[in-house]
Amino acid sequence: MDDKADSIKVIFEPEGRTVHVAPGTTILQAASQAEIMLETPCGGKGHCGKCRVRVSSGAAPPTPADEKIFSKRLLAHGMRLACQHRVTAPIVVEVPEEARFFGQKILVDGIRNDVALDPTFRKAFITVPAATLEDQSSDFDRLKRQLAPLSAQQLAALSIIRDLPGSLTDWHNELTVVMQEHHIVALEAGNTATACYGVAVDIGTTTVVGMLVDLCTGTQCMVASRINPQVPRGDDVISRLTYIRDDHTGLKDLHERIVGCINEIVAELCEKSGIVPDSIYELTAVGNTTMSHILLGVNPGKLAESPFAAVVRESVAVKAAEMGVRINPRGSVYVAPNIAGFVGGDTVGVILATGMMHGQGNRLAIDIGTNGELVLASHGRVVSCSTAAGPAFEGARIKQGMRAANGAIDKVFFNEAVEFTTIGGQPPRGICGTGLIDSVAEMVRTGVVDYTGRIINPDEAPLPGFLKSRIVADGDSNDFILVESEKAHSGHAIRLTQRDVREVQLAKGAMRAGIEILMSELGVTAQDIDEIYLAGAFGNFIRESMARQIGLLPDVSPKKIKFVGNAAGTGARMLLMAKPCRAEADMISTSVRYVELAGRPDFQQAFMMSMLFPGAA
Amino acid sequence: MDDKADSIKVIFEPEGRTVHVAPGTTILQAASQAEIMLETPCGGKGHCGKCRVRVSSGAAPPTPADEKIFSKRLLAHGMRLACQHRVTAPIVVEVPEEARFFGQKILVDGIRNDVALDPTFRKAFITVPAATLEDQSSDFDRLKRQLAPLSAQQLAALSIIRDLPGSLTDWHNELTVVMQEHHIVALEAGNTATACYGVAVDIGTTTVVGMLVDLCTGTQCMVASRINPQVPRGDDVISRLTYIRDDHTGLKDLHERIVGCINEIVAELCEKSGIVPDSIYELTAVGNTTMSHILLGVNPGKLAESPFAAVVRESVAVKAAEMGVRINPRGSVYVAPNIAGFVGGDTVGVILATGMMHGQGNRLAIDIGTNGELVLASHGRVVSCSTAAGPAFEGARIKQGMRAANGAIDKVFFNEAVEFTTIGGQPPRGICGTGLIDSVAEMVRTGVVDYTGRIINPDEAPLPGFLKSRIVADGDSNDFILVESEKAHSGHAIRLTQRDVREVQLAKGAMRAGIEILMSELGVTAQDIDEIYLAGAFGNFIRESMARQIGLLPDVSPKKIKFVGNAAGTGARMLLMAKPCRAEADMISTSVRYVELAGRPDFQQAFMMSMLFPGAA
Repeated sequence: MDDKADSIKVIFEPEGRTVHVAPGTTILQAASQAEIMLETPCGGKGHCGKCRVRVSSGAAPPTPADEKIFSKRLLAHGMRLACQHRVTAPIVVEVPEEARFFGQKILVDGIRNDVALDPTFRKAFITVPAATLEDQSSDFDRLKRQLAPLSAQQLAALSIIRDLPGSLTDWHNELTVVMQEHHIVALEAGNTATACYGVAVDIGTTTVVGMLVDLCTGTQCMVASRINPQVPRGDDVISRLTYIRDDHTGLKDLHERIVGCINEIVAELCEKSGIVPDSIYELTAVGNTTMSHILLGVNPGKLAESPFAAVVRESVAVKAAEMGVRINPRGSVYVAPNIAGFVGGDTVGVILATGMMHGQGNRLAIDIGTNGELVLASHGRVVSCSTAAGPAFEGARIKQGMRAANGAIDKVFFNEAVEFTTIGGQPPRGICGTGLIDSVAEMVRTGVVDYTGRIINPDEAPLPGFLKSRIVADGDSNDFILVESEKAHSGHAIRLTQRDVREVQLAKGAMRAGIEILMSELGVTAQDIDEIYLAGAFGNFIRESMARQIGLLPDVSPKKIKFVGNAAGTGARMLLMAKPCRAEADMISTSVRYVELAGRPDFQQAFMMSMLFPGAA
Repeated sequence: MDDKADSIKVIFEPEGRTVHVAPGTTILQAASQAEIMLETPCGGKGHCGKCRVRVSSGAAPPTPADEKIFSKRLLAHGMRLACQHRVTAPIVVEVPEEARFFGQKILVDGIRNDVALDPTFRKAFITVPAATLEDQSSDFDRLKRQLAPLSAQQLAALSIIRDLPGSLTDWHNELTVVMQEHHIVALEAGNTATACYGVAVDIGTTTVVGMLVDLCTGTQCMVASRINPQVPRGDDVISRLTYIRDDHTGLKDLHERIVGCINEIVAELCEKSGIVPDSIYELTAVGNTTMSHILLGVNPGKLAESPFAAVVRESVAVKAAEMGVRINPRGSVYVAPNIAGFVGGDTVGVILATGMMHGQGNRLAIDIGTNGELVLASHGRVVSCSTAAGPAFEGARIKQGMRAANGAIDKVFFNEAVEFTTIGGQPPRGICGTGLIDSVAEMVRTGVVDYTGRIINPDEAPLPGFLKSRIVADGDSNDFILVESEKAHSGHAIRLTQRDVREVQLAKGAMRAGIEILMSELGVTAQDIDEIYLAGAFGNFIRESMARQIGLLPDVSPKKIKFVGNAAGTGARMLLMAKPCRAEADMISTSVRYVELAGRPDFQQAFMMSMLFPGAA
């Protein structure tokens, strides 16, 4: 191959990597020589269609396998299967992302990369040898022998054994075995080994997100989401618990709503990615303790009253059919373990995704959704708590608050004038969480709001004219006009009221006080903190400078703040993709110490202090 | 206690063991001092009523606990709870067998005594502490903590977790947990810890036997049996396989018949021993491979044709509800593993019960039921085979043959006259298996039948007159009149025909030839054999001298022959009572080598030779 006289040049794009190969070498082999790994679940036999590349220059005529996989248009465009195309002349090959094999490491949204693809469900295509007088072993023994390299011991449900003799006959002994750990859960006709999917679901109090994952490759194929259909029964956890306690059909209602929502998401994921629900064998779910209980159909009513004890902390795995979740009925639904009554599987997901329990140092995770969950890890010791912080940040309880939808004011700057942006660039309809924090932060910075949270009177202190004119009396207190009536979508001015500012103070105060309590529990000061992870739909959009301005976060260098996105959802995906993560989740569930804030005098004290705004004092 | 001046004498009967104890010592403590162990599942609290003894001399007045447990009549008779009765004066105590604690060793019908009671199902009565602000752990965690000494990790089905909050409230936190290994399978109100039963079933082709076992003590409480209701569909395995193959409802029919039969047996066991079916949590079953498949609802049709491969060899455990077996629906049905298509779980049970795979030496087990299964173990190597020997021995295919029921001739002696006994001492109706073997053995011994199996002509050789007169021509061959018409129940003579003798020859020939093949497989001669186990309803009643007379057994010393009763059933009971036996059964199932006799020239040769009768040649 090194003799370039007899060898042919192959260039791989976009790397521009060049190798010289002997005539007749496949592109797959050439790519391997160039250290570019391609997907080949079928072993390079031209069946699976995964190693698709574009020969942008010098393409040979399509092979019959190419013609089966590609349309005429794509063939004309140079698309070929790398395993089938033999090099006979110099070529340039473009390797698309989806054809690349990313080995066994999953890069999870840049947070952790030490998790290997190791799902609980696997498939294997096998041919079962017929029995003979020399080999009279049972049908099931002969089947298992073909699986021997995969696992020493295989068990099967009785229904599978009952079907086995007929299946072997009907399928001419060629079948795909679906395994969940050491259990054979299904047999499928022929070779379906590369169609094995899972769905990871993050059940928020307000939003439900589902992610479709190819369990053969670890690739996330598609995302879909819905507003949690439980919202009409109460916009926070407490109101849903009350509904369950007061209405004897409440649990059933909420359970059916969330299962229905998950089924809609699964159906959308299937439709958009062109797969059948039966090829999805596992669904993992994270959610707060109340959401997890409701999904399981377990009554969480005791969480509404002191001592706030949950029914179940453990992870629970159930047959999909038993749960009514419309993936393969022989598949499994795994619900992540909880930590305590108000720190649930979603927080376990955040801890898992950030890897914050590993290694040394002091790390703080803040997951702001409808609730605010806080976790502090200090040299292996981990504490957590929960604060009812969220609804203000999600626009609830704010006079002109709204969700982060089109027309929501999401960024606010007080420069020479009051400037803002809206989602979708549309005329402003209201204020969403980030816009709210921005506004309050700017009002604090400019002195419109004093350190106690009061909107001052226009002449109480020196203010630029463009701000002064916006402070208007409303009964005993003042409002701040964020958008004049002529610029607003409704024709009415968008105002922030004194009460709105108080809501922000309560929310951020509770959260900051929780942080202070956790720090004091572990003897950690703001200076000791090495990293802060901001997670959750809201956490991800908040501007770090604004969060510090209002005193939501301890006073740490901005470099220490990391936005980790929907870390709970990432955790759900890790639980789907890697068995060892489940053991880690169990460990997190039992070893994180929950700190109950209710009735603690030091929390009340910290809460009072934390409601004040910093700097302006 | 050694100071006899202050101590009181207690004599335990029937041992006559004497101890001296301090006044106020309980009989339970005194018994312990005398090294007599009593049953105390309730821990000596006077609840369970198991430590019942009779104070035959010097009884103190009954305690309230005594009055709850015993009738006035029994109290007057001196019955007392040993844990409650305090010694205040010299007494004599009779300790009945049922009050004695036999430690952890089960003596299994005198075959093995190295098996410890260790069932898969256990119960524990617990009180779950209420949650507090100091202990906010989940309901399930608080429940599991009470079980901690029993097992590190407990899992529960979702339905149990769903019921948990309501159960804790309804039952005032006092409940009994039913565990199957590490799984919590049920919760019961209050304390039901001592009501935990199992049923072991031996499914013969002809007879089904069920044994009720107290899983707290290992005691066998009751036995019930039925004729297998599949018999009307064919009296041997082959005819049932044919029925299944030829009739598409055949499998369903036979499956429902055997499940119905088991349910009848369970109902009878419950009724007769005064327990409820819900307190039975496990049922174990052994049977030949066809019986096991039918019980599981797995089509064994392939066993009817070469290469005679089974569908499943493994043991299978199924929820009782799924199988339709009417024990506790959350209980389990365990079906023992098979060895090959015609050596099933019943043979695994025989190997288990005899312990023949352990240790050194050469041991042969012969289980004669409707089929004859043979196992030879030689210094750790084990081979087995099956011969279609049985029906002749069960009276089928014999002209005047019948089952071992009232009126069946079961023993025959040719002394000065033809003498016989019948079952129940009733007038003779026909011949059962043992009577048949006896008759043929005596005919061989006296020369009525020559070594080729032919019934000779009356004058062909010198015979005593009482025999000669009984040989009568019947076409080309002769019959032997066993019972004259005037002595028979029907008024017609009971005859053994030439064809009947041939049936015995075929059956014993096949069995003996199987033994020879196994011996040659392992290089064992008759002289090398250390023990022969005769098992099965038939094996247990056959007279060893007669079996040797007709050449059924190799020529070994009678001392080496052991009758082990229904060893398959004993195996089923061991599988019920001791988890480690299941691992041993799995090991037996995979390590015993099956020898297929069909089509083997050496078997044909051995069969020809084995049909001849010994000695007379």
